[in-house]
Amino acid sequence: MPDLRQDPIIGRWVIIATERSKRPTDFGSKPDVPRGGFCPLCPGNEDKTPPEVFAIRDPGTRPDTPGWKLRVVPNKFPVLHGSGSPEPHTEGLYDKMDGVGSHEIILETPDHTATMSRLSLQDYHTILLAYRQRIMEVKQDSRYRYISIFKNYGKTAGAALEHPNSQLIALPIVPKRTVEELEGSHRYYEKKKRCVYCDIIAQELEGRERLVHENDAFVALEPFAPRFPFETWVLPKQHIASFETTEEALFRPMAEMFSTLFKKLDATLNYPPFNYILHTSPLDNRHGHCYHWHFEITPWLSHVSGFEWGTGFYINPTDPEQAARFLREVEVGRRESQVPYFGVQEPPKI
Amino acid sequence: MPDLRQDPIIGRWVIIATERSKRPTDFGSKPDVPRGGFCPLCPGNEDKTPPEVFAIRDPGTRPDTPGWKLRVVPNKFPVLHGSGSPEPHTEGLYDKMDGVGSHEIILETPDHTATMSRLSLQDYHTILLAYRQRIMEVKQDSRYRYISIFKNYGKTAGAALEHPNSQLIALPIVPKRTVEELEGSHRYYEKKKRCVYCDIIAQELEGRERLVHENDAFVALEPFAPRFPFETWVLPKQHIASFETTEEALFRPMAEMFSTLFKKLDATLNYPPFNYILHTSPLDNRHGHCYHWHFEITPWLSHVSGFEWGTGFYINPTDPEQAARFLREVEVGRRESQVPYFGVQEPPKI
Repeated sequence: MPDLRQDPIIGRWVIIATERSKRPTDFGSKPDVPRGGFCPLCPGNEDKTPPEVFAIRDPGTRPDTPGWKLRVVPNKFPVLHGSGSPEPHTEGLYDKMDGVGSHEIILETPDHTATMSRLSLQDYHTILLAYRQRIMEVKQDSRYRYISIFKNYGKTAGAALEHPNSQLIALPIVPKRTVEELEGSHRYYEKKKRCVYCDIIAQELEGRERLVHENDAFVALEPFAPRFPFETWVLPKQHIASFETTEEALFRPMAEMFSTLFKKLDATLNYPPFNYILHTSPLDNRHGHCYHWHFEITPWLSHVSGFEWGTGFYINPTDPEQAARFLREVEVGRRESQVPYFGVQEPPKI
Repeated sequence: MPDLRQDPIIGRWVIIATERSKRPTDFGSKPDVPRGGFCPLCPGNEDKTPPEVFAIRDPGTRPDTPGWKLRVVPNKFPVLHGSGSPEPHTEGLYDKMDGVGSHEIILETPDHTATMSRLSLQDYHTILLAYRQRIMEVKQDSRYRYISIFKNYGKTAGAALEHPNSQLIALPIVPKRTVEELEGSHRYYEKKKRCVYCDIIAQELEGRERLVHENDAFVALEPFAPRFPFETWVLPKQHIASFETTEEALFRPMAEMFSTLFKKLDATLNYPPFNYILHTSPLDNRHGHCYHWHFEITPWLSHVSGFEWGTGFYINPTDPEQAARFLREVEVGRRESQVPYFGVQEPPKI
């Protein structure tokens, strides 16, 4: 019998159609074959991007030359622009405003072919701290109300460029999904005087059937009402509303969480295309008491149909308990995780 | 300069990134090549589906044999089941219920290879009246609160079977998107005492820059804040909340609208994969004064990325004014539209 399940934060119902259930290999996901050809994001081609706004570099190397471990550049084809004013104006019954915003590309590693499993703990540490650093800097512009960090991996997931990268978009408005999450967590707080995400973490750590991985500071779990097979959330155990206020000491366990989780996803689903996206508080931080930042990771294993687009009502052929069990039980390569971790000796310069 | 535009009903903002603008041919859409092989939905294979619940047939032919023009069967692999009770029960802080529902397949024509452009006016008339007929019948079950009708065309758009078909899903809950539209149109009504969709139609018929096609009873337009390139809405000019209460006389202009519009979409975008979905009032019809049924048609021309999934905030590289102009100006084949229309002589038996 299929289940109808409701997301406790935004109230979205999903169908968990267990009779269509699939094992990980049934999805037939295949890693993207490198397309080859010229890469404007590789070391040596720094002049093919706008000048860098941030980098972690080998000592003595100059900006916009090789020698970087991580590099952040403005998007050459931004979806929003740095100029203009975020004042709404009307057109009959419609509202619009100038497309004011900021759009940056975070080049995560000089290694064009690095997969998520091959990135080291140090790489993840550097990438995650760079996210914090860029948010801290970009939020100084008072026109912005929200900053989104996300990654598209694989062509199916919308990645236009092969070189490992994530993106930052700063917006003069708060996106709809975030508004829904804020409203939902606020409603829950009004009723219970507690953070709904904290309560979810507590219930999942107690029940453990949707738990994927945990360490001292973070938990990875399959949500109760996932839209997609193997949809996975990463949350800090501690109540923190805004990603950029997370203290530096938590970035090492955060890196461990990412490293382990992506090895598990790659091993279980054969290097699937995926998206991850940071869900964090708007910059005004008025919901600090009830919101809780987290990453949502959604592998792209099945097509989304018209029913789902049109209704916002998703049909998921894999129940989250089964997905969690696969991910919990998969052995992740010891070899890669033995890559020496040098985070303490050489902290990123941010 | 990109635009930020807000949907006047549900408040969703989209980025219209005109500097990434694309002409129809830039999307490189190609028609699906027929995969061939055995089709369980073709005439002669009626025993491969559950017994039909409705059909338009040649006189004298028996159920579940060839001779049908349109045939409706329960889905062999339904996402929801006819048995059980839609009572929510809790699991800690979560809510779930039995997956009660109905899931039918509407086989639109016996012709396996019919494209949307090749369907005749009579075919569309039959299909659209069949939608109404099935909703009228299925809504007798008091456990259901909403009935969704939709079509996935092409593999990219989620079509699992090649044979032209649409689907009906009856649900014990009202989907999130519908709730948002009801809330939005209710808010608008409270303020202005008018239907927001009626106001949109009036403004678009006045301005005409987003108008695609109109006839006496229907209008096709590109919405002001579309999520996708060439997203198109079809609305009755008259205020009608529930699709199934539409009077029979309107089904002929509705068929003309579908026939013309899909010829335009096929000619402009080279037979693109697409979804259409009926947006109609919940079965309790409490929002009859402020809601307005319509179809939303979304061709699948570009990938949706992590940013869009995660934020509910879409980046659309084609502005709707340009898309409307392409669709308005394209010549649609006279040849197909001269297929004799026999709707008046031989009305569907429903």
